Amino acid sequence: MGDGVVPGEFRGRMKRAIVLLSGGLDSAVTLYYAKNLGYKITCLSFDYSQRHQKEIKLAKRLAGLAGAAHIVLKVKFPARSSSLIDKKRRLPKRGLSKIKEAGIPSTYVPARNIIFLSYALCYAEVLSADSIFIGVNSVDYSGYPDCRPDFLKAFSRMSALGTRRGVTGRMVKIKTPLSRKSKGEIVKLGRRLKVPFKYTWSCYEGARYPCGACDSCRLRSRGFSEAGLDDPLSIKTDR
Amino acid sequence: MGDGVVPGEFRGRMKRAIVLLSGGLDSAVTLYYAKNLGYKITCLSFDYSQRHQKEIKLAKRLAGLAGAAHIVLKVKFPARSSSLIDKKRRLPKRGLSKIKEAGIPSTYVPARNIIFLSYALCYAEVLSADSIFIGVNSVDYSGYPDCRPDFLKAFSRMSALGTRRGVTGRMVKIKTPLSRKSKGEIVKLGRRLKVPFKYTWSCYEGARYPCGACDSCRLRSRGFSEAGLDDPLSIKTDR
Repeated sequence: MGDGVVPGEFRGRMKRAIVLLSGGLDSAVTLYYAKNLGYKITCLSFDYSQRHQKEIKLAKRLAGLAGAAHIVLKVKFPARSSSLIDKKRRLPKRGLSKIKEAGIPSTYVPARNIIFLSYALCYAEVLSADSIFIGVNSVDYSGYPDCRPDFLKAFSRMSALGTRRGVTGRMVKIKTPLSRKSKGEIVKLGRRLKVPFKYTWSCYEGARYPCGACDSCRLRSRGFSEAGLDDPLSIKTDR
Repeated sequence: MGDGVVPGEFRGRMKRAIVLLSGGLDSAVTLYYAKNLGYKITCLSFDYSQRHQKEIKLAKRLAGLAGAAHIVLKVKFPARSSSLIDKKRRLPKRGLSKIKEAGIPSTYVPARNIIFLSYALCYAEVLSADSIFIGVNSVDYSGYPDCRPDFLKAFSRMSALGTRRGVTGRMVKIKTPLSRKSKGEIVKLGRRLKVPFKYTWSCYEGARYPCGACDSCRLRSRGFSEAGLDDPLSIKTDR
């Protein structure tokens, strides 16, 4: 079939799950969390003209290491929708940015998680997966509205009403194992689950080393330091 | 910018709307309905490997005739997700099909309207549009769960919680002007709004003439006959 999708193949045999995998720290920990629960996993990654392709390559590697299937889907966001996409705009680097409208930083991509979760719902229906895992976090996060528990609850309710699985009572569950954890707790959980941190990428830029200054780098660094661990990415080897 | 999107350009001048335009009868009537209300309109159509490209070409034409901008987005559904996509599967042609699980026919594409509406939300945020128009109908319809009023209400609630506009109190409204109308009433409304019916396409197949037997042809035909009008597509010219 080319896209690795065989409808219902594993129905009744092994629990199946879709994992949204960006290639970042949180989604990698979420993948290993789902793996640890014994799910047969299909990971979805999105190529949405983000500033670099590094995280998609790493997502592929992470999925492979976890023994999961991996599908990359292209999504076209409007060019000027976010500083994460529009390379002419500057990324905020002056500390965790709460500077924009209603505390939402310029790296916010409109409806991004809504679109990603909608695709996940579609694949969950076709693959008869009963769960979607997403590594959102509402403690140490960037202030995106589509990461908050209230939003995710409303998304679940909407999906129960708008899909075949919902109508037939076999609703797809949206699972957010990291939702209430601090970054330090996420790193500790990742260590316990043996997540290969060196293959995760958090920096909004795709240089050889993380910039260390963007919101995402700052959050990651906070996590490793709270957990008392060294981030393998911050150890610069000689060039 | 290439994609016709200029963020916020018309804020404070003219109300903006996103119209989901498939090129079918209902979405064309919806487009003219929104036009009649004085909205500045951007239409979104989706190329999702449906059986034919005819409706996308007609959508482009309809948008042009209505003076609206038009954006076509590619969406990749799993190959075997629906008989509307998988050409190896047969389309149901034995009368309005209520034959499948929970009354949902094989032409159901998992999470299709959820994905389309999610993209519409994204573009509405970037364009500062305050409304999304979708031509769903829950009277004379095919039994898709993502056309029902309850689902659309839940989608609105989810979008209020998961987008910047929702958080800042300028929520995007989902408008469904055809929701409670019969097909006959839709055709009558279209005539009043001067919808160029000859540039709309309803048949699931993309032959020179509509097949006349699929669910979508049957519903269309019911509409024209209830409205006491001839469907311009059913008048076969000499070859």
